[in-house]
Amino acid sequence: MKKATVHFQPIDRKVEADTGANLVDVAMDAGIHINAACGGEGACGKCRVRITSGSVDYRDGATLSQEDIEKGFRLACRCFLTGDVEVTVPREAGLYDAGVAYAREYSGRYVSSQELERLVGGAWYSPAIKKFAVKIDPPTLDDNTSDLNRLLRALKQQHNLESISIDFLLLKSLSRKLRESNWKVTTTIVQTRMESQLGEHQLRGSRRPKMITIAAGDTTRQHYAVVLDIGTTSLWGQLVDINNRRVLAESSEYNPQITFGDDVITRIIYSQKKDGLEKLQKVIVEGLNKIIDALVEESGVQRDCISQVTAAGNTVMTHLLLGLDPKYIRETPYTPVSNLTPPIRAVRIGLNVADYVYLYTFPSVASYVGGDIVSGVLSSGMCQKNDLSLYIDIGTNGEIVVGNCDWMMTASCSAGPAFEGGGLKCGMRATSGAIERFHINPDTLEPMIVTINKTTSRGICGSGAISILAEFLETGVIDQNGKFNCTCKTKRIRKGSEGMEYVLVYKEETGSPEDIVITEADIDNIIRAKAAMFAGYQCLLEKAGLSFQNIERVIIAGAFGDFIDLEKAMTIGLLPELPKERFVFIGNGSLTGAKLICLSNELLDDGERIARKMTNIELSEDYSFMDKYMAGMFLPHTDGHLFPKVIETITDKKQAC
Amino acid sequence: MKKATVHFQPIDRKVEADTGANLVDVAMDAGIHINAACGGEGACGKCRVRITSGSVDYRDGATLSQEDIEKGFRLACRCFLTGDVEVTVPREAGLYDAGVAYAREYSGRYVSSQELERLVGGAWYSPAIKKFAVKIDPPTLDDNTSDLNRLLRALKQQHNLESISIDFLLLKSLSRKLRESNWKVTTTIVQTRMESQLGEHQLRGSRRPKMITIAAGDTTRQHYAVVLDIGTTSLWGQLVDINNRRVLAESSEYNPQITFGDDVITRIIYSQKKDGLEKLQKVIVEGLNKIIDALVEESGVQRDCISQVTAAGNTVMTHLLLGLDPKYIRETPYTPVSNLTPPIRAVRIGLNVADYVYLYTFPSVASYVGGDIVSGVLSSGMCQKNDLSLYIDIGTNGEIVVGNCDWMMTASCSAGPAFEGGGLKCGMRATSGAIERFHINPDTLEPMIVTINKTTSRGICGSGAISILAEFLETGVIDQNGKFNCTCKTKRIRKGSEGMEYVLVYKEETGSPEDIVITEADIDNIIRAKAAMFAGYQCLLEKAGLSFQNIERVIIAGAFGDFIDLEKAMTIGLLPELPKERFVFIGNGSLTGAKLICLSNELLDDGERIARKMTNIELSEDYSFMDKYMAGMFLPHTDGHLFPKVIETITDKKQAC
Repeated sequence: MKKATVHFQPIDRKVEADTGANLVDVAMDAGIHINAACGGEGACGKCRVRITSGSVDYRDGATLSQEDIEKGFRLACRCFLTGDVEVTVPREAGLYDAGVAYAREYSGRYVSSQELERLVGGAWYSPAIKKFAVKIDPPTLDDNTSDLNRLLRALKQQHNLESISIDFLLLKSLSRKLRESNWKVTTTIVQTRMESQLGEHQLRGSRRPKMITIAAGDTTRQHYAVVLDIGTTSLWGQLVDINNRRVLAESSEYNPQITFGDDVITRIIYSQKKDGLEKLQKVIVEGLNKIIDALVEESGVQRDCISQVTAAGNTVMTHLLLGLDPKYIRETPYTPVSNLTPPIRAVRIGLNVADYVYLYTFPSVASYVGGDIVSGVLSSGMCQKNDLSLYIDIGTNGEIVVGNCDWMMTASCSAGPAFEGGGLKCGMRATSGAIERFHINPDTLEPMIVTINKTTSRGICGSGAISILAEFLETGVIDQNGKFNCTCKTKRIRKGSEGMEYVLVYKEETGSPEDIVITEADIDNIIRAKAAMFAGYQCLLEKAGLSFQNIERVIIAGAFGDFIDLEKAMTIGLLPELPKERFVFIGNGSLTGAKLICLSNELLDDGERIARKMTNIELSEDYSFMDKYMAGMFLPHTDGHLFPKVIETITDKKQAC
Repeated sequence: MKKATVHFQPIDRKVEADTGANLVDVAMDAGIHINAACGGEGACGKCRVRITSGSVDYRDGATLSQEDIEKGFRLACRCFLTGDVEVTVPREAGLYDAGVAYAREYSGRYVSSQELERLVGGAWYSPAIKKFAVKIDPPTLDDNTSDLNRLLRALKQQHNLESISIDFLLLKSLSRKLRESNWKVTTTIVQTRMESQLGEHQLRGSRRPKMITIAAGDTTRQHYAVVLDIGTTSLWGQLVDINNRRVLAESSEYNPQITFGDDVITRIIYSQKKDGLEKLQKVIVEGLNKIIDALVEESGVQRDCISQVTAAGNTVMTHLLLGLDPKYIRETPYTPVSNLTPPIRAVRIGLNVADYVYLYTFPSVASYVGGDIVSGVLSSGMCQKNDLSLYIDIGTNGEIVVGNCDWMMTASCSAGPAFEGGGLKCGMRATSGAIERFHINPDTLEPMIVTINKTTSRGICGSGAISILAEFLETGVIDQNGKFNCTCKTKRIRKGSEGMEYVLVYKEETGSPEDIVITEADIDNIIRAKAAMFAGYQCLLEKAGLSFQNIERVIIAGAFGDFIDLEKAMTIGLLPELPKERFVFIGNGSLTGAKLICLSNELLDDGERIARKMTNIELSEDYSFMDKYMAGMFLPHTDGHLFPKVIETITDKKQAC
C-alpha cells in the first residue's frame, strides 16, 4: 500500500498514512480531535477542514457551498488520501490536539485470514470436498459393466481415486446424466483421510472418499462453501471459493432466537416448552437462510454450486441448530447430548442449499465451551505454538482458553450481549454505520465518531462501546462506577427516558428518527460484561497456576468488526494490562476457523484434536469467580495494581482538568 | 424321525416311511397308484382304503359312513402314520402297481438351510447387525462428558467396541432415553469387518461399526431380520430370529408388477412410460409390505424388533425396487445403473419397518444375472468347493452358473413364468393346495394328486407341472410334441374353451367354482420354458469348453416348494440326464442366501466376492442359443442321445400299451 504524509495545521503535526485512508480515521489515529458527529457521508457538516496543499479524493459532500469548495474547504469524513497533503483544521471543527502522549497507533495486530493460513503451520491446502472432471468410456458389448463401475473406473484411471463410496440418490440419475453429458461429468467427492482409532473422533462417519453429486460437463471451477459462525447474539456467514480460498461475500444477521431470550440459559428454558425446540431451530435456520440468500446474491454464485456448509457455534447453539435437546446442559452436572455430531445433509435441518450438501459442525468441549471456541483456537494457531497463549473470545458467552501445543484449559463465562451491541439502547452489530471508534474533546466534550464503512451512524457496536466507555472515563464524563458526572458542562449529557444518557449523534445530524445515545444502564451492562470476562481470565489462570505475566501472547477474537482499541479495552479493564506487542487480534476467529476447515483436511482433523485436548473448568462451580466478578464492577478494577498505567493516566487527566 | 412299515395289500408290497407321513404320499413314493383326485381333505372320497392291521392317525373325513368306519375303511388322504400298518387298497380306489421298476424314491437330496449353513464351510455365525446391552455411569460434576461419550465409553468397556459411528437421528432422543431407562439401554450396531481395497465392493459404505438404534432396557433377545426373495413372478419372505437362526414365519405373494407385464422386458418397457418407474416401485413395495405384515402376524414378533431387511432379486427387480431406471438394461449393450448398491434405509422406499432399519440388496453380475443368483450360489456353497458344479435357478428368468471355487461363468435365459405356475390356466405358486406331485393310472388314466400341505387342490405349481408333463408323456396322454393323444379312452381329455385340455380335478370333487385343468397351451408354455433352460446349460458349457459329463454336481434352486421330482424333470428334458446322486436341491436358494447374510458377515462379504468373480455370457448375443432352443422344443429333446434312459423308458411303455 502506498503511503502519504498528512501535515495537520495549525498544530504542525505530520503523520504517515495509507493512500485511500479516510481523513477522520487518520486524525483519530494521530490523536487529533475533529468534531465528526454524524459518522460520515457529510450529513452534519461539522468536520469542515481546509486542504491547504496537495489534494484528496473528495467524495461529494452536500453541505458545502461552491464558494467554500473553491476556498479549499472539504468535509474530512468525505476525504480519502491520494498523496501528501496539508490539512488545516479550523477551530470551529473542534481541533483538539491530544498530544503525542495520547496519540494512538493502530493498536494490536490484525491478522488477515491469509496470514492465519500461514500461522497454522504446515497445514496444506487440501479441501475435504473436491471436484473431479472425468471422461468415461461409453459401453460396448465387450465392455458392458454397469454405469457406476464405468464412472468409478474412470475416476481411478484419471484421478487415482479408489474405494469411493457413493450416495444412493446419485444412482437414480446416473445413467441419464452420463448419456446426456456425452460421458463427460464432474463428480464432487468428500475425501478425508483415514485416522487411527481416536474415540469419539471417529463419529465423523467414514473417512473414505464419498461421491455426493455428479454434474454434466466440467464444473470444477464452480466450487464454493458457505461458512457460518452461529453466535448467541449474531450470525455471520461468508461465501468462500474453495478453489482459490477467496471470500466472495460476507453477511450477518442478529440471531432471531433473541426473541426467545438473550442468552443460552433463557433459550434452553424456552426449548423445554411445547414445540419450543422446534421453534428455536426453525428461526435459526431461517436466519441462516437469510445469510445464505445474501451471500448468493452478493457473490452472484449459483446456489447449487455451493458444495459444503461448515458452522461453528457454542454448544447450545449447535444443539439448537441440529434440533438436539439442550435440557441437561442447564442442569447440574451440565452434560450435552454430544460434543461431536456427525455431518448431516444441510437440507435435513432446512438450510436452503442443494440436497447433497453436508453440514459440518465444529466439535464442542463441554456444555459451555463450544465449537466456536474450538474453531477460533484452530484459526489462531495457538495449538501449534510452544508459547503460552491466552485466547479470549469476547461475546455473549465469553470463552477463554489458556495453553499451548501441549495442553489447553478452557472456561466460559456469561458476559451478556453488550460486546455484540446487544442489550444497549442504541446497540447494533459491527456492520456498516456502526460507531466503532470514538473520541471526545475533553474541553468541549464534543464527539468524534468513526463508523464502519464511513457511513452515517446507525448505532453502537462492541468496539464502539469500549471506545466510548474509555473516553468517558478518561475525560471524567463518567466516574469509576460508571455514573455520569452531572457537573460536566455539555448539553449532550441529559436525562432521558431511561435515566441519564449522553447523546452521541443528534437525529438532526443524520436525518434519523431518534438520537443515538448511550445510557447509564448501557454503561452498567458493559461493565458487567467486562467484569465477567476479566474474572474468567483470573480464575482460569489461577487453576493453571499462572499469572498474567506468564502469558506470552493474548489472542483476541470476537465479531467486533476489524478491531478493538487495545488501550481502550485495557482502560475499562476488559483486557489485562500487558505490553501491546503481546496482543494479537484475529477478528471473528470462529468464522475464520469454519472457513479453514473447508480448505484443509488437516485443519478439519485438528479441530477435532483441539476439542479432545481441552480441559474444561466449570466456573459456575468456582466460588471465587463471583468474588472476582464483583471486584471487576469498577473502572478499570477495584484492584488498581492490576492496571497501574491506566490508573496513572486517569489520575493525570483528572489533575489536568 | 421314527420309521413305520406300511404293508400294501393285495399287492403285498412293504415300504418303510416316517411316522407322521401321509398315506397318499407314501403310496406315491412306493409307486402305488391310488385315485386321489381332490388333493386331500377327503373332499372327493375316492381314495378309500381299508386298514386291515394296525392303526393310523385319522383326521376326520366327512364322506365315510359310520358303517364303513367300523369296517376299517379310511380315506387315504386323511391318514397319517403312527406305526406299522397293513393297508388294503380296493380295486375301486384305483389300485395300480407301478411295479418296483417304476417305484420312485424321493429323488435328489433336499438340503435344509441348517445343512446349508454347514455346507458353506468355515463360515461363522457372525451377524452384521448385533444388539448390545450396556449399563452407563450417570454423570457427575467430576465426570460430565457428553451423554454420547458416556454411552461410547460403556460400549468400549463392556463390549470392547471402538470407533463406533452413530446415526445422527439417534442423538435426538439419546439424553431422554438414557435417563428414562435409568442408564441401561440396548444398542443395535451394524458391525462388518474392514476390507482391503476391492473396487466396487467398497460401495457398501463404511465397514466401521455404526449404531443405528437405542432402546431402553435389555432387548437383546428381540432381534429379527426380514429376508426377501424378489422374483419376477413371485415374492417370498421369511422372518428370521437372528439370535438363534430360526425361521419363525414364511410368506409369499405373486409379484404385483405382473399386472404391468409377465417378464422383465415388458416391465422395463412399462417403466419408461410416464410415472411408470414410480408405479412399478410402488406396487412391489406394497407386495413386500403384505409379506412383512404376514410375517409379523404369523410370528407374533413386534414390528419394531425387526433390525434388518435383506433382499435378493434379479438386476431388473433390484432396479425397480430401488427406483433405479432400468432403461439401458434393455438396450444393447445392456448396462445396468449399478451392480452394487449401498444399503439404504428401508423406509426410504416405503417398506413398513422401523426408520433405522437398513435394506441390503444382493449385488448383481450383469443386466440379466442378478443378485438372486449370487444369493443362490452363496447358499449352495459351490463357491467354496473344488468340484465343478452346475447351478440352475429355474424361474421366470432362468439363471445358470458353472464353475467352482476358482472360477465361475454365468448366463441367463428367459424361461417365462411357467415353472412358477405363472402363465398356466390353473397355475399357482408353490403354496398350500398347489398340486406338486402327480401320478396317472396308465390303465384308467385317472390321476393321483398330492398337494402342498395336503389340502384341497387349488391349482398347479411348477413341480406339479413337471410331474404332470412327465406322466402324460410316459403314459402316452401326450406325444413328444406335447399334443394330446385324442384316441385315449378317458373323458378327462376334452375340448375346452382354450383348446384341448386334461381335467386334473373336477369342481364337484372339491366344491370349487371351476375344474382344474391343464391345456395344450399350458403344455406348450412348459416346453418352451424347459427348452430355454436346457439351451442355456448347453451354451454356457460350450463356452467353458465342457460337457454335461464333466459336471460333478448339479445344484437346483427355485421356488418349487420343497422339491421337484428329479426323474420327471429329466423325462421332460428340463434337467440333463446324469446320475441321480450328482443332483442337489436347495429350494429357494435366493431366499436362503438372503437369510445367510443376516447371520454371517463372512457370507455377506462372500456374496460380494461371488458377484465380482462371475463372468457373464450374453446368450442373447449367442446365435447358437436359438438353434439349441428350437432343438429343445420336443420331449425330452430332438437329440435323443442326450436322454438315452428317458427314450428307453418311453419306448418300453409304448410297447407295453
